Amino acid sequence: MGNLRLGIAGLGTVGVGVVKLVESRQEAFINMFNKTAMITAVNARSKSRDRGVSLDKFEWFDDARELAKSSSIDVFVELIGGDEGIARESVTIALENGKHVVTANKALIAKHGVELAKIAEANNVALMFEAAVAGGIPIIRVMSQSVIANEITHIAGIMNGTCNYILTTMAKEGRDFKDVLAEAQAKGYAEADPTFDVGGIDTAHKLAILTSLAFGTEVDFDSIYIEGIEENTAEDIKNTDNLGFNIKLLGMALKTPNGIEQRVHPALVAKTSSIAAVDDVNNAVYIESKMLDGIMLEGKGAGEGPTASSVVGDILQILRGQIEPVFITPVAKLKPYEKARMNRHEGGYYIALNVKNKVGALAAISERMAEFDISIDSLIQQKDDGDDVVIPVTIITEETSESEIRAALKKIDNDGFLASHSRVIRIEKFA
Amino acid sequence: MGNLRLGIAGLGTVGVGVVKLVESRQEAFINMFNKTAMITAVNARSKSRDRGVSLDKFEWFDDARELAKSSSIDVFVELIGGDEGIARESVTIALENGKHVVTANKALIAKHGVELAKIAEANNVALMFEAAVAGGIPIIRVMSQSVIANEITHIAGIMNGTCNYILTTMAKEGRDFKDVLAEAQAKGYAEADPTFDVGGIDTAHKLAILTSLAFGTEVDFDSIYIEGIEENTAEDIKNTDNLGFNIKLLGMALKTPNGIEQRVHPALVAKTSSIAAVDDVNNAVYIESKMLDGIMLEGKGAGEGPTASSVVGDILQILRGQIEPVFITPVAKLKPYEKARMNRHEGGYYIALNVKNKVGALAAISERMAEFDISIDSLIQQKDDGDDVVIPVTIITEETSESEIRAALKKIDNDGFLASHSRVIRIEKFA
Repeated sequence: MGNLRLGIAGLGTVGVGVVKLVESRQEAFINMFNKTAMITAVNARSKSRDRGVSLDKFEWFDDARELAKSSSIDVFVELIGGDEGIARESVTIALENGKHVVTANKALIAKHGVELAKIAEANNVALMFEAAVAGGIPIIRVMSQSVIANEITHIAGIMNGTCNYILTTMAKEGRDFKDVLAEAQAKGYAEADPTFDVGGIDTAHKLAILTSLAFGTEVDFDSIYIEGIEENTAEDIKNTDNLGFNIKLLGMALKTPNGIEQRVHPALVAKTSSIAAVDDVNNAVYIESKMLDGIMLEGKGAGEGPTASSVVGDILQILRGQIEPVFITPVAKLKPYEKARMNRHEGGYYIALNVKNKVGALAAISERMAEFDISIDSLIQQKDDGDDVVIPVTIITEETSESEIRAALKKIDNDGFLASHSRVIRIEKFA
Repeated sequence: MGNLRLGIAGLGTVGVGVVKLVESRQEAFINMFNKTAMITAVNARSKSRDRGVSLDKFEWFDDARELAKSSSIDVFVELIGGDEGIARESVTIALENGKHVVTANKALIAKHGVELAKIAEANNVALMFEAAVAGGIPIIRVMSQSVIANEITHIAGIMNGTCNYILTTMAKEGRDFKDVLAEAQAKGYAEADPTFDVGGIDTAHKLAILTSLAFGTEVDFDSIYIEGIEENTAEDIKNTDNLGFNIKLLGMALKTPNGIEQRVHPALVAKTSSIAAVDDVNNAVYIESKMLDGIMLEGKGAGEGPTASSVVGDILQILRGQIEPVFITPVAKLKPYEKARMNRHEGGYYIALNVKNKVGALAAISERMAEFDISIDSLIQQKDDGDDVVIPVTIITEETSESEIRAALKKIDNDGFLASHSRVIRIEKFA
């Protein structure tokens, strides 16, 4: 294969970053590969907008779908975004027309990855998406090129910078979720509609992709159990900090006897674990396997440079002629995703209760825990600040099942001893 | 290419790990690649030793050099060790006979990598060594497959588990180097002759390899500036801890206007940096580039599972037919390594002085610093424990040059105000 001609669809931050990076690295690419990848055509909504880079020497396309089938390109770089519409249509057209596709579109791959992989493999072209998961962290390459030597048992990632920034700031400054979110929005770290990020959906898109790679199963976004960080309180963060934990929004996939768990939710992680130290907008992915023990990759999960970097990394793999099955295992051999039901999840739990100062309240709570065979690792009865009417109680349980926790808390909530609804956060352990 | 036949030379911990891993993953490899890598022949010093795995079905070779040219293998897996002798000979023979080579031998690659790469590339075979640097951390793959999109400016690694264990234990328990080393030796964490590890040589071998990959230069182990951890004291660790730093033995390569710095030495790293949190026997490598910002990979740097895992990762890349130039850039195009002289290094410094309690001592020290244009960021005069005869003084400098620090300290040492020789540790900054 000679030089590779690139068509860039979408010229936002990442698209412009790709243009800059590819242009600046021509000499290095030729030195390494004796050939290069060069941009020949571009597409965006507005041709006239000033993007700080000259696009004069590239062929212009008003419609990404036209670019996708143009004879001027070998690789279609999709940086439009969205899991339907133009992005899905143009990627499909590109693959059907024998173009390799590189994309940063996690929603598209999480929702339609298997279907698109079929088209790619039928046409013997690459469909690559390193930039879709954890931005600049080369997690896809590490999984597909290195970790496949092993049987993976556990992956866990901090994969949304907005959530990690909010949780880190809540912890550092003792502030509440809504307050920090508003500030993040003002600073441009969070979207005007933050649901996608703080609700855990973005993390779940990325997790769906990693699960498929890790376990050789079909991508199944719809089966993921998702909780966001909206309910996290400054009080929980303070309580768990005292107990030696940080709270992180994790996307996790684990092999269990009941199938594969895919979960996105806030989790308590021991301060001594590496993942607990991943702060602010940083992302990290932890992978555990039978032989490798745990490895962790940390870096920037978003932004022009890191994301463009991953896009160009994919382009270079195509330049080297390394065309691989989309999800490592050929799509025809991917197993169906076998879901482990959330009710059967086993782990430790943090439980926060605001108990009314009544005789027998604590005894009643302890009885309910015993009724469902829940062993208590520690129970802290906080001193009340003033009126002695409500006493905050923090419980850390030993390993127990989700169904028992839910059943016990339902009864405790109904017993009438609580001043407000019980709060619960799962505890995650790392090797 | 069909199945790949492996010859394993060396059946120590890692060799046995490779046998176990390859055997246990046959079904997975066939599912992923529709072909497999299988062991056909082995070599070690003793055939009869019980290694906990059956070797009956493999052809036995008494001499690694015979295995290296055997028609029974496609890949020669060198796990003998040592930069000369049988390891070097057998790898050379294997490459000359058109066999791919996978090795975990950092000394061999650090010393003879360029020469071996020439033979590999002339014979159109792979020479791979993921396991040679940071054990189970896929740093070679990340650099050669992903980070090459960028211009790398800075790499820094904790790449020797023994040193990191010793420094971590010294810090946690306030104990001195010799004491902790003796314990590590008793526990089997450190060799009877620890020079290779604690003297920084092992780290330098790994650094030499990373530098070549990062900057497209010839491997040049002999140009590395090396200091070990033997001189680190519990007192320095306590002082720097109070100032917000941990001490780590780092291997570093940086692009500077004077050339490329390659250095191995203990360094102060801010506790807020990710690398400061890498404890005990763990390894980590940090890479910074113009577009990607910093990424860090952390994991186990040694041991049966992690090292075998990296060896098998390399084997799978060969199975996929992805034969690459040994140091990313073809060996003929590697630039000579342009050494930045250590004297011209610029950075912050931690200086510890035991000052005699004499009139004018501190003034004399301050004057010497001023004489060499060294700006002081902070100076802490410790309270003396008892006799008031010697006062410990800790200085953190602003950015200055190595030559000025050395010249100033030489004069301060000679001025007669110190009760013992000055101690100095460099400060490293991370983005």
